[in-house]
Amino acid sequence: MNYHQLVELIKKKQSFLCVGLDSDIEKLPKHLLKEEDPIFEFNKQIIDSTIEYAIAYKPNVAFYESQGIKGMLSLKKTMQYLENFKGQCLSIADAKRGDIGNTSQQYAKAFLDEKGDFNFDSITIAPYMGEDSVKPFMTYPNKWVILLALTSNKGAEDFQFIKDEEGEFLFERVLKRSQRWATKENIMYVCGATNAKMFSQIRNIVPDHFLLVPGVGAQGGSLEEVCKYGLNSNCGLIVNSSRGIIFADSSENFALKAREEAKKLQQEMKQYLENLI
Amino acid sequence: MNYHQLVELIKKKQSFLCVGLDSDIEKLPKHLLKEEDPIFEFNKQIIDSTIEYAIAYKPNVAFYESQGIKGMLSLKKTMQYLENFKGQCLSIADAKRGDIGNTSQQYAKAFLDEKGDFNFDSITIAPYMGEDSVKPFMTYPNKWVILLALTSNKGAEDFQFIKDEEGEFLFERVLKRSQRWATKENIMYVCGATNAKMFSQIRNIVPDHFLLVPGVGAQGGSLEEVCKYGLNSNCGLIVNSSRGIIFADSSENFALKAREEAKKLQQEMKQYLENLI
Repeated sequence: MNYHQLVELIKKKQSFLCVGLDSDIEKLPKHLLKEEDPIFEFNKQIIDSTIEYAIAYKPNVAFYESQGIKGMLSLKKTMQYLENFKGQCLSIADAKRGDIGNTSQQYAKAFLDEKGDFNFDSITIAPYMGEDSVKPFMTYPNKWVILLALTSNKGAEDFQFIKDEEGEFLFERVLKRSQRWATKENIMYVCGATNAKMFSQIRNIVPDHFLLVPGVGAQGGSLEEVCKYGLNSNCGLIVNSSRGIIFADSSENFALKAREEAKKLQQEMKQYLENLI
Repeated sequence: MNYHQLVELIKKKQSFLCVGLDSDIEKLPKHLLKEEDPIFEFNKQIIDSTIEYAIAYKPNVAFYESQGIKGMLSLKKTMQYLENFKGQCLSIADAKRGDIGNTSQQYAKAFLDEKGDFNFDSITIAPYMGEDSVKPFMTYPNKWVILLALTSNKGAEDFQFIKDEEGEFLFERVLKRSQRWATKENIMYVCGATNAKMFSQIRNIVPDHFLLVPGVGAQGGSLEEVCKYGLNSNCGLIVNSSRGIIFADSSENFALKAREEAKKLQQEMKQYLENLI
């Protein structure tokens, strides 16, 4: 999915909602545990019930890896299921990978290769190791790198706010430096909702890029603030909600409740989009 | 394996060699491709032939993930095989993970949990997201976090050498800041051999910690330099070689040749250790 197609999708659904599939087996509705693959069954129902309102799905790879081979099979089946919705949503491997060049190449193959088990449209990448750790992910046409800039957790303060000699924060340097290797057509940035006021500074550096925004909901970020400072004329935001949607209810009605929560967010998003695109 | 046990192991084998299992299926000896699980068969023979000289094995997770579920099964079998050598080597998941707290917890479970498919002794972690992204990996007794400080690739220059207002490099800040949450008993640092001259600066900050050193061999780092600036009175180094050992030969004699290369490095290491421990 390219930039233009993504903007069109947002216009069509009047939504920039990403549903985070942090499908923690410990939190699944109990009645699903009798299924052969409870995590996949859960994801399938979540996707079916929210596809009208969501423009992206973001499996958090950790929650699959923690279940070993079995979990990776659930992820594979989830990705196969998402093939049914090609063009209707962007898939994001929330994997936070990044290593030296020849190794990043392997991670890229793992998550972005069409012939692989996990054919994602995009993947989140940690920037610590610099250019050659990021570039191998940009060799897949119409696929995306989503680079960590400013994260939503407390630990973001430890390093991302280090000021260099020119008075620039590390996360600003990440935004600027990565412009040398990437464009708005193949890179987005993770910018946490818990730092929404920083979004105007971020928009000074990357006015046109898409930002993937976690931290709305359970982590305390506000959608209103994110939109106030982060929206651009092509929307430019993908706002993620995980727990607030997928674990809104743990009964047999979980999918219905997830749909309601997704709809609520979409309705709010629609208002912010109205005067824009 | 705790700090003391690791030092004893190094004394016993007179080696601080780590063999990197970057078992790229494209580079395996051709005769192995007829095996049911070529990657596992390769690793098994590499381990058997080098265990006398190596104190650690480091599967590079990317090379398994890139093969999808099948690759993860090869990794699982490799880890099961390493159980036969408990106490004789440290296992390192070269995974470069790191995410918000609840997600890092899942990655920790994936790689460090005894009941999981991949029961590693340690895991490499990227520091970009700070304290709460690292801490969940430190809840497993006698297991290790190996935090990226100064990596061996060119891209290390992009961010790791940013100088803050006090004139301190980012990688130095990572070393210092992480001391607040961790001790030499549960954290090591990745410090690339290609920056060996930086090791005296690094030793000023972490005199007692173990450093995991990639970059010797194929990446151009020198063992002599690493030892000159990096050794401490408990050795304090684990030096990795991947391609230089495992792909030294691609014929049916690959394991024998790997053994020779491992021995060569061990013999050199033995000299550096002689006056130390």
